[in-house]
Amino acid sequence: MVETIATEETSRLIASNKVEGTSVYNLQNEKLGSIYNFMVDKQSGQVEYAVLQFGGLFGIGNDYYPLPWDILTYEPSQGGYVINLDKAVLEQAPRYEAGKEPAYDKDYGNSVYDYYGLTYPY
Amino acid sequence: MVETIATEETSRLIASNKVEGTSVYNLQNEKLGSIYNFMVDKQSGQVEYAVLQFGGLFGIGNDYYPLPWDILTYEPSQGGYVINLDKAVLEQAPRYEAGKEPAYDKDYGNSVYDYYGLTYPY
Repeated sequence: MVETIATEETSRLIASNKVEGTSVYNLQNEKLGSIYNFMVDKQSGQVEYAVLQFGGLFGIGNDYYPLPWDILTYEPSQGGYVINLDKAVLEQAPRYEAGKEPAYDKDYGNSVYDYYGLTYPY
Repeated sequence: MVETIATEETSRLIASNKVEGTSVYNLQNEKLGSIYNFMVDKQSGQVEYAVLQFGGLFGIGNDYYPLPWDILTYEPSQGGYVINLDKAVLEQAPRYEAGKEPAYDKDYGNSVYDYYGLTYPY
């Protein structure tokens, strides 16, 4: 699959600031939100979560939904990430408000990954 | 060690947009530049490089120096990353200009990691 946005991206690697702000769609082609940032293990450099932002108006009242990095697939033809997720499922997903970031400890990891049907491996 | 900037950071994880823009110092307390972005494996979510930016004036003519993620240590008391690197060594390091990103393939990885005395593990 040819990546059409070659700048700051190779077939295998992607730049952090290219991921941030990228739109996220589901298989029904509904826009779920966009990637706000992602959370990296300081020691190992392993990305554990990509944080999806949506809701609110003009950035006010947005909620933040940590997603396992693994469930995101970049789709060049769509110019964004595609995940297999109904809006209704996302609306019940683990989330936090701005300024109220979770502890991101093992319990939180287990609950987030479990919600998306995965085992938290870290 | 207590992290003084708790927002969007835990003892183990750090947010991508907090890393970007963070200053980088050497052991002589000289500012080497700041982190521009970092390069992540799309599949595995493994960060392979943090890209240090310096040189130029007002962002024009800046050079970009990919560093192995491993050599960066966050130092809360300094509010930035500290690396064991002389300025003279950095000035000879692998770099690229804006818009001329390297292929970031295995050969490039070997040359960058080797420059910093490490083995490219990916």
